[in-house]
Amino acid sequence: MSRSIRLAVIPGDGIGQEVVAQGLKVLSAVLPQDVKLETQEYDLGAKRWHATGETLPDAEMASLKQHDAILLGAIGDPSVPSGVLERGLLLKLRFAFDHFVNLRPSKLFPNTSTPLAGRPDIDFIVVREGTEGPYTGNGGSLRTGTPHEVATEVSLNTAYGVERVVRDAYERAQVRPRKKLTLVHKNNVLVHAGHMWKNIFDKVGEEYPEVTTDYLHVDAATIFFVTQPERFDVIVTDNLFGDILTDLAAAVTGGIGLAASGNINPSGAFPSMFEPVHGSAPDIAGTGKADPTATILSVALLLRHLGYDAEAGRIEEAVAADLEARDGTARTTDEIGDALAGRVAG
Amino acid sequence: MSRSIRLAVIPGDGIGQEVVAQGLKVLSAVLPQDVKLETQEYDLGAKRWHATGETLPDAEMASLKQHDAILLGAIGDPSVPSGVLERGLLLKLRFAFDHFVNLRPSKLFPNTSTPLAGRPDIDFIVVREGTEGPYTGNGGSLRTGTPHEVATEVSLNTAYGVERVVRDAYERAQVRPRKKLTLVHKNNVLVHAGHMWKNIFDKVGEEYPEVTTDYLHVDAATIFFVTQPERFDVIVTDNLFGDILTDLAAAVTGGIGLAASGNINPSGAFPSMFEPVHGSAPDIAGTGKADPTATILSVALLLRHLGYDAEAGRIEEAVAADLEARDGTARTTDEIGDALAGRVAG
Ligand SMILES: CC(C)[C@H](C(=O)O)[C@@H](O)C(=O)O
Ligand SMILES: CC(C)[C@H](C(=O)O)[C@@H](O)C(=O)O
Repeated sequence: MSRSIRLAVIPGDGIGQEVVAQGLKVLSAVLPQDVKLETQEYDLGAKRWHATGETLPDAEMASLKQHDAILLGAIGDPSVPSGVLERGLLLKLRFAFDHFVNLRPSKLFPNTSTPLAGRPDIDFIVVREGTEGPYTGNGGSLRTGTPHEVATEVSLNTAYGVERVVRDAYERAQVRPRKKLTLVHKNNVLVHAGHMWKNIFDKVGEEYPEVTTDYLHVDAATIFFVTQPERFDVIVTDNLFGDILTDLAAAVTGGIGLAASGNINPSGAFPSMFEPVHGSAPDIAGTGKADPTATILSVALLLRHLGYDAEAGRIEEAVAADLEARDGTARTTDEIGDALAGRVAG
Repeated sequence: MSRSIRLAVIPGDGIGQEVVAQGLKVLSAVLPQDVKLETQEYDLGAKRWHATGETLPDAEMASLKQHDAILLGAIGDPSVPSGVLERGLLLKLRFAFDHFVNLRPSKLFPNTSTPLAGRPDIDFIVVREGTEGPYTGNGGSLRTGTPHEVATEVSLNTAYGVERVVRDAYERAQVRPRKKLTLVHKNNVLVHAGHMWKNIFDKVGEEYPEVTTDYLHVDAATIFFVTQPERFDVIVTDNLFGDILTDLAAAVTGGIGLAASGNINPSGAFPSMFEPVHGSAPDIAGTGKADPTATILSVALLLRHLGYDAEAGRIEEAVAADLEARDGTARTTDEIGDALAGRVAG
């Protein structure tokens, strides 16, 4: 196990700065003394774009690549046209660093509020494909802005891309107590991509006889997310369906303030990137109201990815304990970070 | 107002037969004596496909076209490969008859169970585009079934198609007390289609100064569906996002057993088609457990479309009263139909 971590940090926009600061605080607190943590901060996001017109220059890309992992806060600001930073920075990183496993665990922690009556027992992970589907940026617009405009969006899917993410999901399902994997797609309408996903899902499944499998159309899946979320263990799905389902999952498990994610390249050829599922929330930026827990849980995913399993577990336990102890008193971003850093400090 | 209704009936598969029978029962009961109801039943669906390989032959298409409206039960059976009946029958009808307004009201009726704590006040309608987007069947697969397969799905969007459905949604928002219209898309990723939708939405909005507008990404919209559904009044969205959102809406408003829909061609050039949002539910077909309420509410939408507003209102009031009176005693499909027919009978 490597005893040094070279971490690239992209705080980004809005509350990104604040939550990343707490993530780093907890990371420093949890790491054993002998692990050297080297961080390098990157000034990317709305401010940079306004100042220079750049979203992610090649030089920065090359420099980011030298790191073991990336911690990202949030990207996006209403002052920037929709899509510029998403496509030019966030998705560029996910695609260039081949983050084909977009890992998003969903767990209803004790003492957190869910909009669902009866507090179902929710504990599943979504393995969202991260480099294909409707996210490839393929498509265009003809006669833009006229009454004759035609706009297309092309979902691109390859057997190579689907097989590797489906296999990753089977591996994850295999080591969980329930060993259940659900494929979510829409193969009754998107027949080409949908049938390819289903065929590969069935075929790879033959290698995992212990894993119970299930298929749901995406529309039906949203119903079960609110009526029977306990039926899910591991879900594997396409890039867009995964985007939608994981926001819904965050909502039913106590809110986007707790939802962590990892953009993972399992081969290690490129640094993986960890980020809260939430956005930059410009309306509360600078007020100290942002909950850094999602970022701190993303740090746990980062540690597990780098092989620091015990430390990752310590953060997750600290979060569970902290949530359990919450009594409704409002705490600032900083106070939550301090509390968690205190709990993980050996 | 026409005093005869030529109604095409496609019971379809599974519980389709049973629920359509109740829909027709209530329709007959609510119609004034002097309105002549002529129904013609079409044998389409899984059985027909198994027997003849046909999904929707031209002759039937031409015959269906001669009607004022279509009432459809449900299409689909596990014995038929996924996509065959959906694309060859259901979507073929929606596209051939240019059903560009897929209208799906969502209302939390009194005394129905919602998975949401606190029973929020839900009353919105989704105007789902019905003839474009990722549903066009555009796309394909190369090297199918091999490790080198590439599969595409193309979302096709035209200014013509988007403008007309957006305008329809503004018209509907304009006559509602809250006059609020929310566009749901994903224009930070699907930038071509998304920006076209947003630009047209903004432009048409200039003609409706009384309507308050709002934009949400589809992932964020799912969050609000469970945390703050009362914020919605009218939603306009693309074909696929509308599919996903309306199943979720049905789930939070008491289940898919109550969700009605209309596939509407507002110009009247083709017959519009009304159907429950639920599927054929083969697991409960023939058991008398199916709730016909969604079909009966679809009949109300059908009547309103044909100009029988008072009769449509009577059905909706009957459903509300019937739901309020439910005491948890299980009733059969037939008993619910009888109860509602009794309530609407003048
Ligand atoms: C900001 C946006 C591009 C992004 C996505 O759609 O993937 C976000 O919603 C997410 O889920 O990480
Ligand atoms: C059966 C399927 C093709 C259909 C759709 O996706 O539109 C259904 O889910 C619906 O919402 O009416």
